[in-house]
Amino acid sequence: MNKNEFAPTAPMGWNSYDYYCTAVNEEEVKANADYMAEHLLPFGYQYVVIDIEWYSNDAATDDQYQYIPFGDNEMDAYSRFQPSPARFPSSADGTGFTKLAAYIHAKGLKFGIHIMRGIPRKAAHDHCRVLGTEETADKIAEPSSICGWNPDMYGVKNTPAGQAYYDSLMQMYADWGVDFIKCDDICDTWTYRESNHNTFTGWEETRMIHRAIMKTGRPIVLSLSPGPAQLPRAYEYAHNANMWRITDDFWDSWELLKPMFWRCETWLDHVKPGCYPDCDMLPVGMIGGKFQDHNERMTAFTKDEQKTMMSLWCMFGAPLMIGADLTQMDDWTLTLLTNRDLLSMLDGKHHGTQVLRDDRQAVWMNVCQEEKEISLGLFNLSEEEREIAVTEKDLEEAGLYQEIPGMSKSDLEGRRFVESWGGEAAAMQNGELRALVPAHGVRVYKTRFLPR
Amino acid sequence: MNKNEFAPTAPMGWNSYDYYCTAVNEEEVKANADYMAEHLLPFGYQYVVIDIEWYSNDAATDDQYQYIPFGDNEMDAYSRFQPSPARFPSSADGTGFTKLAAYIHAKGLKFGIHIMRGIPRKAAHDHCRVLGTEETADKIAEPSSICGWNPDMYGVKNTPAGQAYYDSLMQMYADWGVDFIKCDDICDTWTYRESNHNTFTGWEETRMIHRAIMKTGRPIVLSLSPGPAQLPRAYEYAHNANMWRITDDFWDSWELLKPMFWRCETWLDHVKPGCYPDCDMLPVGMIGGKFQDHNERMTAFTKDEQKTMMSLWCMFGAPLMIGADLTQMDDWTLTLLTNRDLLSMLDGKHHGTQVLRDDRQAVWMNVCQEEKEISLGLFNLSEEEREIAVTEKDLEEAGLYQEIPGMSKSDLEGRRFVESWGGEAAAMQNGELRALVPAHGVRVYKTRFLPR
Amino acid sequence: MNKNEFAPTAPMGWNSYDYYCTAVNEEEVKANADYMAEHLLPFGYQYVVIDIEWYSNDAATDDQYQYIPFGDNEMDAYSRFQPSPARFPSSADGTGFTKLAAYIHAKGLKFGIHIMRGIPRKAAHDHCRVLGTEETADKIAEPSSICGWNPDMYGVKNTPAGQAYYDSLMQMYADWGVDFIKCDDICDTWTYRESNHNTFTGWEETRMIHRAIMKTGRPIVLSLSPGPAQLPRAYEYAHNANMWRITDDFWDSWELLKPMFWRCETWLDHVKPGCYPDCDMLPVGMIGGKFQDHNERMTAFTKDEQKTMMSLWCMFGAPLMIGADLTQMDDWTLTLLTNRDLLSMLDGKHHGTQVLRDDRQAVWMNVCQEEKEISLGLFNLSEEEREIAVTEKDLEEAGLYQEIPGMSKSDLEGRRFVESWGGEAAAMQNGELRALVPAHGVRVYKTRFLPR
Amino acid sequence: MNKNEFAPTAPMGWNSYDYYCTAVNEEEVKANADYMAEHLLPFGYQYVVIDIEWYSNDAATDDQYQYIPFGDNEMDAYSRFQPSPARFPSSADGTGFTKLAAYIHAKGLKFGIHIMRGIPRKAAHDHCRVLGTEETADKIAEPSSICGWNPDMYGVKNTPAGQAYYDSLMQMYADWGVDFIKCDDICDTWTYRESNHNTFTGWEETRMIHRAIMKTGRPIVLSLSPGPAQLPRAYEYAHNANMWRITDDFWDSWELLKPMFWRCETWLDHVKPGCYPDCDMLPVGMIGGKFQDHNERMTAFTKDEQKTMMSLWCMFGAPLMIGADLTQMDDWTLTLLTNRDLLSMLDGKHHGTQVLRDDRQAVWMNVCQEEKEISLGLFNLSEEEREIAVTEKDLEEAGLYQEIPGMSKSDLEGRRFVESWGGEAAAMQNGELRALVPAHGVRVYKTRFLPR
Repeated sequence: MNKNEFAPTAPMGWNSYDYYCTAVNEEEVKANADYMAEHLLPFGYQYVVIDIEWYSNDAATDDQYQYIPFGDNEMDAYSRFQPSPARFPSSADGTGFTKLAAYIHAKGLKFGIHIMRGIPRKAAHDHCRVLGTEETADKIAEPSSICGWNPDMYGVKNTPAGQAYYDSLMQMYADWGVDFIKCDDICDTWTYRESNHNTFTGWEETRMIHRAIMKTGRPIVLSLSPGPAQLPRAYEYAHNANMWRITDDFWDSWELLKPMFWRCETWLDHVKPGCYPDCDMLPVGMIGGKFQDHNERMTAFTKDEQKTMMSLWCMFGAPLMIGADLTQMDDWTLTLLTNRDLLSMLDGKHHGTQVLRDDRQAVWMNVCQEEKEISLGLFNLSEEEREIAVTEKDLEEAGLYQEIPGMSKSDLEGRRFVESWGGEAAAMQNGELRALVPAHGVRVYKTRFLPR
Repeated sequence: MNKNEFAPTAPMGWNSYDYYCTAVNEEEVKANADYMAEHLLPFGYQYVVIDIEWYSNDAATDDQYQYIPFGDNEMDAYSRFQPSPARFPSSADGTGFTKLAAYIHAKGLKFGIHIMRGIPRKAAHDHCRVLGTEETADKIAEPSSICGWNPDMYGVKNTPAGQAYYDSLMQMYADWGVDFIKCDDICDTWTYRESNHNTFTGWEETRMIHRAIMKTGRPIVLSLSPGPAQLPRAYEYAHNANMWRITDDFWDSWELLKPMFWRCETWLDHVKPGCYPDCDMLPVGMIGGKFQDHNERMTAFTKDEQKTMMSLWCMFGAPLMIGADLTQMDDWTLTLLTNRDLLSMLDGKHHGTQVLRDDRQAVWMNVCQEEKEISLGLFNLSEEEREIAVTEKDLEEAGLYQEIPGMSKSDLEGRRFVESWGGEAAAMQNGELRALVPAHGVRVYKTRFLPR
Repeated sequence: MNKNEFAPTAPMGWNSYDYYCTAVNEEEVKANADYMAEHLLPFGYQYVVIDIEWYSNDAATDDQYQYIPFGDNEMDAYSRFQPSPARFPSSADGTGFTKLAAYIHAKGLKFGIHIMRGIPRKAAHDHCRVLGTEETADKIAEPSSICGWNPDMYGVKNTPAGQAYYDSLMQMYADWGVDFIKCDDICDTWTYRESNHNTFTGWEETRMIHRAIMKTGRPIVLSLSPGPAQLPRAYEYAHNANMWRITDDFWDSWELLKPMFWRCETWLDHVKPGCYPDCDMLPVGMIGGKFQDHNERMTAFTKDEQKTMMSLWCMFGAPLMIGADLTQMDDWTLTLLTNRDLLSMLDGKHHGTQVLRDDRQAVWMNVCQEEKEISLGLFNLSEEEREIAVTEKDLEEAGLYQEIPGMSKSDLEGRRFVESWGGEAAAMQNGELRALVPAHGVRVYKTRFLPR
Repeated sequence: MNKNEFAPTAPMGWNSYDYYCTAVNEEEVKANADYMAEHLLPFGYQYVVIDIEWYSNDAATDDQYQYIPFGDNEMDAYSRFQPSPARFPSSADGTGFTKLAAYIHAKGLKFGIHIMRGIPRKAAHDHCRVLGTEETADKIAEPSSICGWNPDMYGVKNTPAGQAYYDSLMQMYADWGVDFIKCDDICDTWTYRESNHNTFTGWEETRMIHRAIMKTGRPIVLSLSPGPAQLPRAYEYAHNANMWRITDDFWDSWELLKPMFWRCETWLDHVKPGCYPDCDMLPVGMIGGKFQDHNERMTAFTKDEQKTMMSLWCMFGAPLMIGADLTQMDDWTLTLLTNRDLLSMLDGKHHGTQVLRDDRQAVWMNVCQEEKEISLGLFNLSEEEREIAVTEKDLEEAGLYQEIPGMSKSDLEGRRFVESWGGEAAAMQNGELRALVPAHGVRVYKTRFLPR
């Protein structure tokens, strides 16, 4: 079993966080799954992911804290969190997410959950049992390895008993029918990485979780959070996980979107089958509904910014996880998310690379060798509309003729390109493709030399 | 009430840690107090301080951990640790250290305890009560503010309820008869100070503890640990505490002793009545007895190194806390600790300053204006015996004639100095005092212009 | 000779930089000196200091660079810069600043100059001679020790020939009649301090310059720039120099003034006779005239901010160097600079300390034991007018009764204080002195228990 | 023109530095070229590279400095260094390296030189001319952008005149017949990267040099030094250069060799045609001859360490630049350098990846899809001989079956592997290949499924 085969193409789906914060419930998950099955599955979206603190019994009612200190969390006899039965009634019989997963699977979708790295603090203080070992939770927990922003867990020591804990946890998830795990506080963990005492256990926990998944025999996709992931650890991410966040939490703000061009440049050599640097959820459509500040809103991104985001994510090859409440989906956003030109770049046969970037513009090239297809993304990173150009020479330097053997300058001169977002077509003339692009916006020009 | 009056001169006494680690018991404390009262009190030593985890019921029997994760700690109904009754039988009736403090006071000594910053983690997880507020411990504890090396506490939030907790704690200590508190994990706290999430609460806890002490009306000396204290926080230390550690844990090794010259240079402008940069315990005599590695030993310092340490601490004006098991005191060490020439420098009327320092030598000057007394410490920091000299010009540049108005070059030329450690006397000749000093050793030359 | 006697009180005077940038000339210096002698000398201002690049022949005519790369600098045969004769005609005969210094001395004033640490780069590349050694400039210059912002110099190696260079330089300055040297690129030097190769030579050059000054026998005050000075080097600054900058270049902006409260707190234990942490020039009156951006202006500080600055500098004990073009002095600014209540705090008999500080307010206390005089500065650091109060308890905690032995609470209760900036008087009532203070403003309340 | 085509496979050759330091001369270069043409060219070694300061007239005779401050360097009228005619007599007629390059080309070899980023400092101070622009060197040089360890150059500003300087320089090199440029002080530059003033110009100079090379029309390979290169700049290195150093200077010490495993892991996704992370020269054979310490020696590496180095460099895909004095080549070293099994991995059809690594061992896999060839490197990083094993499962996880489509577990079980360094053959049995490997040593097991 090779974990890269669990996700041969970049995962696509929906995540509850951007709208529901810590408070999503079973009905809401089902409603979103229903929408996805009907409207998005045909385009490749398949993962339904329940984000953080589905085990919290009071998350849905607290207005003060995002993560309630020492709150009331549902836990089984073996130090493993369980779904809060008040929020997920089908779990009241002790079957965890089994029934909800079955509901989702029945629609042809896949089921994912969020977890925090570690073992519940409460279990350690109460010396609870751990399945598969005589050692109790207090022996397994590392009391100085905590998360800096969530109070639920202690890190797990890299010992046989610690591995037994993770084995029992992943087996339970496999039994439930989990297909996707987003593990948090493990990819870039602020709190401990600078500590002199070096009590951070997350790097070893990454390997422990990977091993535990492999033991289950179930192809569970592993996604690591939060970011920014650390470049020197690229090898470890790629050998233990399928996705790793290259940014801190991403929201609907140009101040966060613009640096994603720099982040994608930095990580582009690391996009491979089964290995996906992760740009975080797409904060589009209706978001923010259940956060403490009650700031339910249509995304603050302009339409141009949303096209820019969608184009970059696809040309780079990032996973697409929708943040919107799908039950409130509008037509425009649906169109954005289902642009076939862009989505085709995630089919595993396309390869993207950056051609040039400065503070005001970026140009990306995405190529499908098999179909002799080329897309050129012209991004305007500045505050005013401007003409952006890319030359044949730029494409040569960016390696186009290596990517499509046999192609040469004469194939491009005069070549007509279609615009993928419905804009005007354009041609390469005098060795140059040129377009007027709105502020924060994009034009994606596509041409295919072989017929489909 | 001004906290500087609680300790008008640098505190002197004994601390249980260097010999007893976390495991000292009542009989041992009394035995050390007995020795101090008889042999050391006449020289100014008066504080008997019980160091870390006197509340642990299993510290004395565990060989694996110095601080047992999720161990069994004695606690009252108000989230306050109590002495372990097995180790401190007089506390079994719920009076805490009251009886032990009375025993110590009866001998003319003062009583001190060590505490960890914060509120017990167990109290937070169990939602225990806090005296003087309706809020329970989980509301007061900051779940991301922990110590990097000790698993007992969460930091306390700077709220009225948080202050109520510290008020109740300090009042209990005052009621017990505590005269000295060494508060740990508060002076330089490695774990959190670099955190992006900035959940460290220690700087505010320093002020909360100071306020709580002032409210008790009892002059409890406050000592902050661990070090190295942070220079830019000198003002805060000086306004809230009486002592603050300028070094990480100090032990019997030249590699730790030599840099103390640099540390003392750095802090020397901050030594004032009631404000004492703290060089940590004197690891002399028999130490290490109850540590996990069972390395009971006579200090690894040479005799020359011990004189160097004692001379630097006294010339600088640091507190003197003996680390040795006093019940195993030997004659040589007792002589070291009771050198009246050196101890007199801690009487509040002396002022020390560094004259010069390089990698191989240091010279200190200590002056008592009132008695027109001058001591010159010639320290050999190198690995070989060497001649060390100080000139009248050096003393002028170091400010001698400002310190003793009316004194001039002619007073010094030909002046005879007595050596304070029993070495040969020496005179200033041709504007220079010169001595042969052994490797790692010291010569202290003293002269007094006014008769006593 | 003790360098602390060169400046027994904090130096006061005028510096050419804030108005004239690099381009001041002889007539302008004289005109400013004339004004100072007539209007400011009676209040204690005495130093006339010519700031950076008086040796540049093209500084006055270049509009592009503040410091012209590889520009035309006047230099003698011994690798020493000389005044530009076009700008300082009296130097055309090779006597340097001798005649200008004499002019200034004749008015009862003192004469100062700015220098850059090091030896001219041009001298090193041309292998020029150095007085007092056979080695040429290329042997003395450290080719990797440069300034990050000024292109004129290489650092000097700590060798006998390097010392000979500084000896020859300081002797030339002494011969000219220099009383004050502001040495730049030596106090906190950004460029090299983090370098792996550690080629920064400035810390050793500080000692070399101090030694060279002592050899001249002339009491030349030494001022180190730029800041922020490094706290752990406080001992070295105090033993080699009279002033050291605790801030980067200070200008007329609240964003720079507000943090000075934090900076002064940090350095207040280091203010002593002959040792003055330096808050940089007072950017008041007409400034900015000869800078490249031609932004001649009345200071952008409000009047309240200027009083705040003047009050803090004086209560703290900082040097007062006026930045204004004195020839354009206005009445209000002159009044600001000559407030006798504030200036008296720099007489060497006053001592200032901070009583309390938070983000919105600060309170300082300044005491003259001899005259039983107390001043209380109530500073409003916030954006709105607010009431600020200081209690008798605060003053006790800040050490008032130690500073004036014999004083007690009863002396203060009901005591009437005069406001030093012409505001309403106030009294301490019920243990509290309270005043309404404008945004960014100050009230200074003074009382004297002994008659003058 | 695409710079990746300049070096479709990893460059192999010889560099003068490890033996000759700054002092190689024309005869020595020729003698090394003669040896290479006869003994190494058949194996793919073709570059003859003259390292640092070939322009220094006194480098060969100075015993004090590696790089003489303000030394005598040969320069033309356009601010461009020329070969020292005393050391390179064929350049005395002003033709630079033209004749030496021709000599080397005549042998079928390629000619390379080392340069320092920037423009000569002397040219800037003397306001020398620059070809192709009216601006003189002082206008082009950035006076605060220097190298921390070599005193020759100032950085060049990114202006049209700055580009003109680099254009004229690269054109001169192209005219000489240069095929390879190792540019120093540009890949990771310690001195300035942390500077607040941010005067480092090297990142822009990288792009300027690349552009200047492209303008010449000559395929000059560009190699960047020193290391460690910065991971977040991988994209820029790959788009402007052919090689970039991933380590600081590498010498014959296990303390430097062992971390290369970590460095190669970090960079392995960035090895591509035309893009080679560079592990620095191979310090084998006779080295150190002309250094200031006169430490001529046979490499201090053991034979096992040398095989480890050679195996890692080849399996990773790094350039191979021999450091030895070729004229003193011994049989064993020649055999080491000409191992055809290992060298074949640099043919552009092989791909290497790390299978596993911990502190005691590493396993690498190198695959040629076309020939269905697999090599497994078992490296012992510990201090004792030990058994090292790799399993079929490890190879699956490392992606073997993706690299050679159609291959499966059954192809491997029982498969016999030959050892590439002459050791015993081995077979995969029970899903495992296992070998005893000496301390610091390696075994490389190779099998080929298609016949050649």
